[in-house]
Amino acid sequence: MRILIAQSGGPTPVVNASLVGAIKRARELGHEILGGIYGIEGILEDKIIPLTQSDVELEKISHTPGAFLGSCRYVLPEPGDEEYDVLFDIFKSRKIKAFLYIGGNDSMDSVAKICSEAERRHFPISVIGIPKTIDNDLVESDHCPGFASAARFLNIVASEFVVDSISYSKPSISVIETMGRDTGWLAASLKLSERLVRGLKVLIYLPEEPTSDEEILYDVQRLKDGPLLVSVSEGVMDKEGNYLKSAPVLDSFGHPKLGGVGEHVASLLKKVKKVKFVNPGFTQRAASHAVSSVDFQEAQMVASVAVDVVNEGKSGFFVGINREKMNYHSSAKLVPIDKVANKVRKVPKKLLENDMNGFMEYLEPLVGQMPEFIIR
Amino acid sequence: MRILIAQSGGPTPVVNASLVGAIKRARELGHEILGGIYGIEGILEDKIIPLTQSDVELEKISHTPGAFLGSCRYVLPEPGDEEYDVLFDIFKSRKIKAFLYIGGNDSMDSVAKICSEAERRHFPISVIGIPKTIDNDLVESDHCPGFASAARFLNIVASEFVVDSISYSKPSISVIETMGRDTGWLAASLKLSERLVRGLKVLIYLPEEPTSDEEILYDVQRLKDGPLLVSVSEGVMDKEGNYLKSAPVLDSFGHPKLGGVGEHVASLLKKVKKVKFVNPGFTQRAASHAVSSVDFQEAQMVASVAVDVVNEGKSGFFVGINREKMNYHSSAKLVPIDKVANKVRKVPKKLLENDMNGFMEYLEPLVGQMPEFIIR
Repeated sequence: MRILIAQSGGPTPVVNASLVGAIKRARELGHEILGGIYGIEGILEDKIIPLTQSDVELEKISHTPGAFLGSCRYVLPEPGDEEYDVLFDIFKSRKIKAFLYIGGNDSMDSVAKICSEAERRHFPISVIGIPKTIDNDLVESDHCPGFASAARFLNIVASEFVVDSISYSKPSISVIETMGRDTGWLAASLKLSERLVRGLKVLIYLPEEPTSDEEILYDVQRLKDGPLLVSVSEGVMDKEGNYLKSAPVLDSFGHPKLGGVGEHVASLLKKVKKVKFVNPGFTQRAASHAVSSVDFQEAQMVASVAVDVVNEGKSGFFVGINREKMNYHSSAKLVPIDKVANKVRKVPKKLLENDMNGFMEYLEPLVGQMPEFIIR
Repeated sequence: MRILIAQSGGPTPVVNASLVGAIKRARELGHEILGGIYGIEGILEDKIIPLTQSDVELEKISHTPGAFLGSCRYVLPEPGDEEYDVLFDIFKSRKIKAFLYIGGNDSMDSVAKICSEAERRHFPISVIGIPKTIDNDLVESDHCPGFASAARFLNIVASEFVVDSISYSKPSISVIETMGRDTGWLAASLKLSERLVRGLKVLIYLPEEPTSDEEILYDVQRLKDGPLLVSVSEGVMDKEGNYLKSAPVLDSFGHPKLGGVGEHVASLLKKVKKVKFVNPGFTQRAASHAVSSVDFQEAQMVASVAVDVVNEGKSGFFVGINREKMNYHSSAKLVPIDKVANKVRKVPKKLLENDMNGFMEYLEPLVGQMPEFIIR
């Protein structure tokens, strides 16, 4: 069977581990595997290449950040549109029997639409979605490949940042902005730094829980005398649903800047105490030097299972991750793609209660070995 | 002999490796070693503790970022001032026979002043300076402990950031701001990323070479079609000696923001193409998870040699690093402290010529093993 695989959306540190997992499994099963360049956008232009890398090259690719095949942010039209003529002509002329798409919510929308269209046309192709997002916001999966590595990197740099800052007799408040426009999984993950740095308190602000300058100032006032890390998701909003910013930040040319919720909070807290701010930005989704080994292994596993699924002739599924609670162990679970596409999984309240014990129990097995600091 | 050791100035990822190097060597030679808390500022308040950590704890401390003993930014008065009565009373009552100070330019000024004052008073104490600065700007040392680890971390995150960004069919220009208010060693170190990412061009802007918006735009226009990283030192100036910024950047409260040279360049380049910007900020001086093993070993070595020097009763020296060129090897070199204090070593023009080949030859043995990426 000839399988086509492609990557879509924002890369993660393990999105190439998934690619390599699929290539290896396809070879084991004797299938031919081709790569679509720049996701569905490039496939629509017939940008398709053979994947003939050696095992040594594959090993290096699996540890390379970015999307090896290239990525896109492209929304397919509703099924029935003539764009599908182009796509299915390419599937036909290229003799593609299976299509694997590695991506997040938007990409699962593409998978769902291609499945519908294939059904409409009675076109024989197996289409499967493979999860990938540092945002961890896909439903029907305990967690998403990419999240644990980003959370691991963020906790490493944030705890190092805090330990640096408490070197002084008058330590600053440390403020960090994390990715997460719609959900606060990454911002919340920084609670783990309390377990890495003795005495540290971490305050978390998430899109799931609207707040205000006044509330943040109140929280910080209570904790300002000890080591304090304030973790702010880029998507934190006020109760009116606006990103938390009292006035637009202007760039050097006087134009309003995008982003900046973390910078806003850092500016705000200067009223209370000296503040140090860091925004790891795109480095958090590219930190292949700090991947979690569990995450790396699971990223390969879900893609390998996707190949098994098309090998059995199934279509229209998403390969989620199942957690077996006792002594952390995970397995793949097949979910009908319509249950996943276009849905967003917010951080459940339950994980945030009781000083976030539930969240820590959820997170710790995923990030694996963390550094151990000795503080005076 | 009773030795007092303290740390000063901005921490580095290996400043505690130096501390541990000194403690271990002092124990080997049968000396007692005490720690001064918050540098000379804390010592003036008699904040001095015994250092009785186990070998296992010392090992962990050596891999902990920040300054384990605490740090300060404190300028001692000129010799002769009555503040020295306080300091030398403490040395006397505490029976301190040697003082080791781990720090950068400003701290070497403190070492020089304490040496002068001890001479003036005929007070028997050996005082030695141990280098530490990610800025790499101490004279009379081939390089400074801390620099190679910061350069290693910056190159890892910058190259990962670039590889992520070239995942898209229309890649952005990547802009990174590095520390280095007066010198461009760290900004220049990012040239190494050209050797990590195939096809990448890196443009470097340093305090040593004043520039302008027009020059930067000109440089970028020529290279904008391929993968491009623009590395901007926080201290880049225009030809009039002002930090490169056309207008003050305002924070959410309308107050002018500090810093921002990198952000200014990022805003500027938006005229040319899409731009992604990252400022690793304090994480670059705290990245103990990404230390260079050469740097770690040298940080221990210079401190260990400092103990040998006071063991021989010598005083008034700085322990620099000597490079033996063939097959990289380094050794300590003793430099009279007055030759080091208050001097700044800028990046020599020679290292920047010929597409920075000299700089790369200088840097590569220091940073050690780097990640290997495979780009499509």
